[in-house]
Amino acid sequence: MARGIITLTTDFGHLDHFVGTMKGVIKSIAPGADIVDICHEVSAFDVTEGAFVLAQAYRYFPKNTIHVAVVDPGVGSERRAIVAQGAGQTFLAPDNGVLSLILEKEKCAVREITADRYFLKSVSQTFHGRDVFAPAAAHLAKGVPVSRLGKPVKDALRMALATVHRTGKRTWSGAILKIDRFGNLITSLPTADFPAISERLFELAVGLDKATLLVNSYSQAPMGELFVIAGSAGYLEVGIKQGSAANRLKVGCGAPVELTFW
Amino acid sequence: MARGIITLTTDFGHLDHFVGTMKGVIKSIAPGADIVDICHEVSAFDVTEGAFVLAQAYRYFPKNTIHVAVVDPGVGSERRAIVAQGAGQTFLAPDNGVLSLILEKEKCAVREITADRYFLKSVSQTFHGRDVFAPAAAHLAKGVPVSRLGKPVKDALRMALATVHRTGKRTWSGAILKIDRFGNLITSLPTADFPAISERLFELAVGLDKATLLVNSYSQAPMGELFVIAGSAGYLEVGIKQGSAANRLKVGCGAPVELTFW
Amino acid sequence: MARGIITLTTDFGHLDHFVGTMKGVIKSIAPGADIVDICHEVSAFDVTEGAFVLAQAYRYFPKNTIHVAVVDPGVGSERRAIVAQGAGQTFLAPDNGVLSLILEKEKCAVREITADRYFLKSVSQTFHGRDVFAPAAAHLAKGVPVSRLGKPVKDALRMALATVHRTGKRTWSGAILKIDRFGNLITSLPTADFPAISERLFELAVGLDKATLLVNSYSQAPMGELFVIAGSAGYLEVGIKQGSAANRLKVGCGAPVELTFW
Repeated sequence: MARGIITLTTDFGHLDHFVGTMKGVIKSIAPGADIVDICHEVSAFDVTEGAFVLAQAYRYFPKNTIHVAVVDPGVGSERRAIVAQGAGQTFLAPDNGVLSLILEKEKCAVREITADRYFLKSVSQTFHGRDVFAPAAAHLAKGVPVSRLGKPVKDALRMALATVHRTGKRTWSGAILKIDRFGNLITSLPTADFPAISERLFELAVGLDKATLLVNSYSQAPMGELFVIAGSAGYLEVGIKQGSAANRLKVGCGAPVELTFW
Repeated sequence: MARGIITLTTDFGHLDHFVGTMKGVIKSIAPGADIVDICHEVSAFDVTEGAFVLAQAYRYFPKNTIHVAVVDPGVGSERRAIVAQGAGQTFLAPDNGVLSLILEKEKCAVREITADRYFLKSVSQTFHGRDVFAPAAAHLAKGVPVSRLGKPVKDALRMALATVHRTGKRTWSGAILKIDRFGNLITSLPTADFPAISERLFELAVGLDKATLLVNSYSQAPMGELFVIAGSAGYLEVGIKQGSAANRLKVGCGAPVELTFW
Repeated sequence: MARGIITLTTDFGHLDHFVGTMKGVIKSIAPGADIVDICHEVSAFDVTEGAFVLAQAYRYFPKNTIHVAVVDPGVGSERRAIVAQGAGQTFLAPDNGVLSLILEKEKCAVREITADRYFLKSVSQTFHGRDVFAPAAAHLAKGVPVSRLGKPVKDALRMALATVHRTGKRTWSGAILKIDRFGNLITSLPTADFPAISERLFELAVGLDKATLLVNSYSQAPMGELFVIAGSAGYLEVGIKQGSAANRLKVGCGAPVELTFW
């Protein structure tokens, strides 16, 4: 009995039967599948956040993992379903940009998912997680070759994400990609691109406030003061020790940030 | 090592050790059991909602699945624990109506669960999920025949759920069964019973507003307008594209709806 | 393929990829590990609550279970990572008190975790759940002896938790250890230490109110009245039938309680 891993990333939350039902569908087709939840609290309809969450997690999974990402405001429309193979893994999702970061970071072969013999018999207009993506993923876990799901496509939707612009000699602008559970603000500024931050005076403006302190760990930060830290996601983060930077600064995802060196 | 599936549906939420502890009990008795969460955010004490959630999910699970549903405001009282077998699956729950929809839809044999040799040694008055239902389910997964759990009963509690009444020549009344994570209102009006909705002018009154538009998919709906859609649960749903109908209409579960054809 | 159980208890919540990523790390090292969530909604940074949650759950898991507890406000600082063995189980956590109740209840051998060959290659300053604890636990599940992780220590941090003080001939003071999902207040008063409560008149003062009624089950309680019950965690709890005692009394974790016999 195959023990392939299938991960789930959705905006279905935990209030409903949605995720449990998807698991029932998978287990009915591939009883040995090892289902792992990545996140189900992606903000409703927020494809960008879904893309970020999946991009953070996938590279920690073993080869041959099958990832299912369902953040799908266009369910039931003409938007395609796609399957991408890259980095030794397989990704199933609506073709709405939720795989953008995977497609950007990995060399991927992409196919449209059209073979309805791998779907549930009756496909609803509102829950393709259950009717399309879960069964297709389960059939892959069971050994169906990905080529059976549909034909290659070259034009999978890729959104511009995680942008950074140089806006002056000493200034870069970016945006907040994600606010984590602790209220830390994950910016789009890759830590690796700004080594100078540990050597020079800087200010990182977010909302109506500015962070001017870089710390190596949360514990170094003084209580109550905004700080910048090299976050675990690979980006500069803005935080407050044992507090919520998001609450203090009253900013949300997508809010602009500006980094200036002095 | 048996790999039988045990699903869990509860109102225990995610703030406590409750669900994790139930899993520990199951794994201690049936190490190979494959535990699948259906939903733990059933509203506290809401047997009706628990019944709905379980009824949506169970039919997507394979034969021989064991379902445990613990929404149990009467824990510690004289209310019975029951086990029902139907549709090739097994359901354990307090006898308080949470299995109503299963008993209504499937031909079931029901037994009272009384054999305390399949419970934990010490049974609390407040946590039968841990002390009674988890161990009993695990013993079943391990191969104990269901007949060992207790004697057949004929009078398991069945609540009237999902009601629809014809209230006039062209009008039907129902209620909101569930509000999903997106704020969609799932009504008790079965889609299959109202085929005319796609052919005739109608109005579906909910709260202080009315929906008069039927869409086939969320994407067809104009932004901001209430619509009716054939939901994935088999009922007519009221929604707002990328918005929350529940927030807009300020209605909750149980609120009346009225469908009128013109 | 080893099917050892690894449990996870964290304050990472469900909004992010954190828990999913830890599972990816574990599955990459120990594909057969059986990962069980205990709780991820420990209040952010609340080591005391994490200690309580883990202490409630661990004893229901089978021998050889590996428990990972990451509530880690000091991540990236000089605080040690430790592994404790006791009760036939293994516990990995930051050395910040989150294992206090395990160390108090079980005879444990404790080691510092220092062997970075069992960590991810690159260890961040902010996410040791992913970089240190998940891989170390996975290596243990795969058969690495715990002695390889590091040297014994004798001074693991133990916080004073669950305190009860006798404050008079007929009075004892304690505190609220945890508020559960239903709003029940779990006090630090062990049920077993107060058998008289079922025989004598008493009053249990919490916030601005007092409970004077003992019930054996929730269903015995009159609607709306505060009651005391022997909770499933082994402590006296204060509740309101189908209501939230926490909301009514406006108290939080740590709030004092006083028990008086008449």
